[in-house]
Amino acid sequence: MIRTLLLTALAAVAPAAHAAIPALMPMPVKMEISDGKLAVDETFGVNVKAANRLGVDHPTAPPEADRLGRAVEWFLARLARQTGIFFAPVAKAATLQIGCVPCSDTGPTLGEDESYSLDVSPTGAWIGASTADGAIHALATFLQLIQLGPDGFQVPAVHIEDRPRFAWRGLMMDVSRHFMPIEVVKRNLDAMAAVKLNVFHWHLSDDQGFRAESKLFPRLQQFGSDGLFYTQQQMREVVSYAVDRGIRVIPEFDMPGHTLSWLVGYPELAAGPGPFEIGRRFGVFDPVLDPSREEVYTFLDAFIGEMAALFPDPYFHIGGDEVNGKVWNLSPAVQAFAKRHGFKDTLAIQTYFNQRIQKILHKYGKNMIGWDEILGPDLPPDTVVQSWRGQDSLAAAAAQGYRGILSAGYYLDHGRPAAYHYGIDPLTGPAAQLTPEQAKRILGGEACMWSELVDAETVDSRIWPRTAAIAERLWSPKEITDVDSMYVRLEVVSRLLEFAGVTHRSSYQPMLDRLAGDRRAEPLRILADASEARGLGTGRRAHQTDTPLNRFVDAARLESESVRGLELIARRVAASRPPGAGDMASLRAQFSLWAANDARFPPLAEDNALLVEVKPLSKDLSALGAAGLRILDCLETGKPAPDDWMANETREIARLQRPSAEVLLAAVRPVKILFDELSRRK
Amino acid sequence: MIRTLLLTALAAVAPAAHAAIPALMPMPVKMEISDGKLAVDETFGVNVKAANRLGVDHPTAPPEADRLGRAVEWFLARLARQTGIFFAPVAKAATLQIGCVPCSDTGPTLGEDESYSLDVSPTGAWIGASTADGAIHALATFLQLIQLGPDGFQVPAVHIEDRPRFAWRGLMMDVSRHFMPIEVVKRNLDAMAAVKLNVFHWHLSDDQGFRAESKLFPRLQQFGSDGLFYTQQQMREVVSYAVDRGIRVIPEFDMPGHTLSWLVGYPELAAGPGPFEIGRRFGVFDPVLDPSREEVYTFLDAFIGEMAALFPDPYFHIGGDEVNGKVWNLSPAVQAFAKRHGFKDTLAIQTYFNQRIQKILHKYGKNMIGWDEILGPDLPPDTVVQSWRGQDSLAAAAAQGYRGILSAGYYLDHGRPAAYHYGIDPLTGPAAQLTPEQAKRILGGEACMWSELVDAETVDSRIWPRTAAIAERLWSPKEITDVDSMYVRLEVVSRLLEFAGVTHRSSYQPMLDRLAGDRRAEPLRILADASEARGLGTGRRAHQTDTPLNRFVDAARLESESVRGLELIARRVAASRPPGAGDMASLRAQFSLWAANDARFPPLAEDNALLVEVKPLSKDLSALGAAGLRILDCLETGKPAPDDWMANETREIARLQRPSAEVLLAAVRPVKILFDELSRRK
Repeated sequence: MIRTLLLTALAAVAPAAHAAIPALMPMPVKMEISDGKLAVDETFGVNVKAANRLGVDHPTAPPEADRLGRAVEWFLARLARQTGIFFAPVAKAATLQIGCVPCSDTGPTLGEDESYSLDVSPTGAWIGASTADGAIHALATFLQLIQLGPDGFQVPAVHIEDRPRFAWRGLMMDVSRHFMPIEVVKRNLDAMAAVKLNVFHWHLSDDQGFRAESKLFPRLQQFGSDGLFYTQQQMREVVSYAVDRGIRVIPEFDMPGHTLSWLVGYPELAAGPGPFEIGRRFGVFDPVLDPSREEVYTFLDAFIGEMAALFPDPYFHIGGDEVNGKVWNLSPAVQAFAKRHGFKDTLAIQTYFNQRIQKILHKYGKNMIGWDEILGPDLPPDTVVQSWRGQDSLAAAAAQGYRGILSAGYYLDHGRPAAYHYGIDPLTGPAAQLTPEQAKRILGGEACMWSELVDAETVDSRIWPRTAAIAERLWSPKEITDVDSMYVRLEVVSRLLEFAGVTHRSSYQPMLDRLAGDRRAEPLRILADASEARGLGTGRRAHQTDTPLNRFVDAARLESESVRGLELIARRVAASRPPGAGDMASLRAQFSLWAANDARFPPLAEDNALLVEVKPLSKDLSALGAAGLRILDCLETGKPAPDDWMANETREIARLQRPSAEVLLAAVRPVKILFDELSRRK
Repeated sequence: MIRTLLLTALAAVAPAAHAAIPALMPMPVKMEISDGKLAVDETFGVNVKAANRLGVDHPTAPPEADRLGRAVEWFLARLARQTGIFFAPVAKAATLQIGCVPCSDTGPTLGEDESYSLDVSPTGAWIGASTADGAIHALATFLQLIQLGPDGFQVPAVHIEDRPRFAWRGLMMDVSRHFMPIEVVKRNLDAMAAVKLNVFHWHLSDDQGFRAESKLFPRLQQFGSDGLFYTQQQMREVVSYAVDRGIRVIPEFDMPGHTLSWLVGYPELAAGPGPFEIGRRFGVFDPVLDPSREEVYTFLDAFIGEMAALFPDPYFHIGGDEVNGKVWNLSPAVQAFAKRHGFKDTLAIQTYFNQRIQKILHKYGKNMIGWDEILGPDLPPDTVVQSWRGQDSLAAAAAQGYRGILSAGYYLDHGRPAAYHYGIDPLTGPAAQLTPEQAKRILGGEACMWSELVDAETVDSRIWPRTAAIAERLWSPKEITDVDSMYVRLEVVSRLLEFAGVTHRSSYQPMLDRLAGDRRAEPLRILADASEARGLGTGRRAHQTDTPLNRFVDAARLESESVRGLELIARRVAASRPPGAGDMASLRAQFSLWAANDARFPPLAEDNALLVEVKPLSKDLSALGAAGLRILDCLETGKPAPDDWMANETREIARLQRPSAEVLLAAVRPVKILFDELSRRK
């Protein structure tokens, strides 16, 4: 029996149905599940049959093989971590066969064929692809298909045909505001590959740090990085690590603004007088490169040439955002230059600068990308515009003939829920009015991890798992929009991502332990499980680069999985008369835990500088637990609560929906569902 | 006011007193705590004043400085992780001054002066030492002194004088039965330094794998390792990483037995006929080197010379354990050779072999160490004997003039509680009869992590935190023996060790998530929290090298912190009439959780091959929770339970004290305390 899955039918998949439907993310274009399972045990092996190997088959690839061979190596290492199985060093069986014919192996390139097919039967699995990258995506799908069944690890018999909706599916990581060591970059590349993202946009310089080693201009990193930068060898290592995972690396050197860290070592590049110091605060700084002096272009030509040689991808990001023009307006030299060229405003000056940079980039075989501020009247036509201020600029750029990618709505530092990002589609809103030819210029999008509020310890938990939802938006058919289905799968994929190497889940308990000092952190964990951290611009303040990120808000996750589970139960209880006994018991147990928790909190928080701010939150949680218990009683007995109590609770619930200590008490949501139902029944 | 802490007074320190007494482990020889605190904030800096720097002071050491300078670097990195504080790249203050005069910087050496003093006042901290290693130990103490107080992170004003009781304080890691990647080795070196262990004994070869690259004899690793071995560059890297942390590295190449992996590539070294295959099962194999052929010694001379050059420490371990003699007895050549030399038995032949090896080692400037089987009549006098079969051999060796180290009682793979290891003292038992001069030959001890039952994922949780208790036994004065104090401090130190880099705590949840398949693991976590894994020879079976270590027993910890907490409460309840309300509430809450847990377990374990074996355990836990609740009722009301119920519970509790699915239901212990009290009151 073959059950063809309609994609939209996933909406109806409840968590309980887990065994039948694998939690794939992104969802493939077509998936047909059959009866039968393929066992994954210690005999498992991979055989690659690639056309560019002159037809020679070989078993599990040896070290230093080609890219697909190396992909099989990390696939097997990942499979071993995910299952705990030790695979035989020389595979006993060719369980999974990869037929990559004709197999391009030139590295991931924009617009290449990333499609693949994957067929699994009880006797084996077959991947078909015409590029190494297609095959790499199929391997990622295979890992998500693995389930723990009655006989061990297994993959359901399935036929999958898949290809991405957008060619540009990226993650931008800002390593300037807080430096991210190379192992952080690598583990995030592993996680990107797990959800088929294919562009790593590396924001390597900004006011707060210049993170790339230049041999031509060593004062850039010597004076601009506090010693925290990547050597050229490390950058090459990241590029090859990414390429092996089907990921292009786009470096960004933001200019002419956001260049304070450049100017510490090279003040002569500045439009205004120095000396300069590395930025320690956040926001937009005035210092900017001088567009009027040829020496600046000479410097940039040499520098871009040096960097272009490290990054093989033909796209190069020049930033171009947030030039406030203050220094240019105050500089007699820049003003004289503007007058000479007839430039009326800052944008015209910046467009001239961009045109000069574009010529340099062309010389080194690179296409220019920039943030949407670069969209001026005379922007060269092969520029790619990255829209961050809104979807309007993306549509405007496409209408004017420019290619574009969307990041507005994908800013991870804002701390919004996965559902919010999931609802943002590059081709909706103003883009929906474009002609088909214009719409084709919209290449995809990028999730953006600005690092004012994250460091190496916390960055994974701010990128993942939410970025998996963005990855699905950019890969899967546009009809895949069901939020409940997304969350069910996201939770499973989130756990798998730990085996890919990111620490978004495992970093949680040690951070709570640190907050608890030398006490046991359990009451703190109960509070943190019930809380959600706010993001920049949505309740969270950014201070400066050396402000410790060791507070409760840093340990708390952005979305509480356990509260989401309680919301589902609360909705069922609200909808049923009488409510299910199991559901009532689950809610009672959780509310009781909350109600009792604050009694344990003061001993934990006593004399603890970092927990002072969450003492009121702990009280609120316990009050909420007590209120929840009372509401359950009322719903069960059918007896209403007194009016004054209801009025008071209405105010309390409204108050608790506002952030405190820069976190939200997520626990209020299931209680509010029950309270609203109680109000309705009155 | 100065409170001089009597060391034995620590016995009286309850967990609640945490703020006053820092959780140091190992406990120093002398500690005086005063009023006042030193703040640890972003201005914190270290200044090294070392005599071998010609009196030149310099602030926080630059990269590539000497060993003490590099130690300060990793100290600051560790401090940043532990506190979440970003320290200024160029320190603003010399908060911590290190005076190392005269400062030996030749690397850690056996018997060097490891003493240090540490003085902390509200205005600064001073370390005094005469070797870099003394100063490195002081830095480890400083990290454990840090507490989270009302104004942030702080260190109490303190005067510490400290020195080790034993000069040899080691951890042996077997990387043969399961290979441990270099990052696993490094993070364990970091953790060793945190508790002042100073010897890393690297068991590099055994029947199941030859893990060191030989350039002279490449078939050793090519045929004997399944591709899992350390390159020479990696071994040098480990040595320098260890040396920077005050740790000597002793390589072990076990011979003439335990050499199956050598013989795969070089069958001509064997006393019996080949061909040979890498060992996949465990236990003692018969194949052994041929002691009768000069070619074997020629090979070993070249090989040992090659390895000796990689490992600068003057000690070299040749194993020598478990030679069963079967092949030698069957070999006409070996028997003829034995007859020629007048060797009466296997031991005599092995002693000859050892004498030959010792000559080779001397040639390369190395002293020989071996397991206690090497203790034969003509053993060269400068040999060090490592006692593993019992404390008798250690005393016997010392009485015969040999130096020795103790490992009997420190076998981590046996899965015994920290208290067991803590109770083993190298100078008690038969060693107590030695003369002072003989006793001096007992250099210390080593914890041994044999790897039949651990892999890279689980090894940290089998080494830590228990090894910290062994580290205290080997460092601290012999009077420090209070188990309750040890456990209070061990729990705090265990959490700190995560910031040193080991993953003994953070690996727990991902392993439970894997076991839960795509379901939520919470009921499984409650069961695992209540369970304790058994070790080899104490309820756990070892199968073979490719048996997955992904079962419940692998995820469960060896000692349950939460159950230990419940035992303390249960003891208080048993001792008080009436029992404290808070204590009763805590026990009730936990027992209720257990009682309710099994209802949630079948949906989780359904169709799950790995959870089938723990279904009965889950039922037992819930029954135990229900029994615990009933016992609490009886204790509270003073009404006895019926005789038949008591008789049944007696049987049940006896049954639950036996392992099931290779784990113990630790939860039985607090319930048994209460049940015994109820029986007494009857």
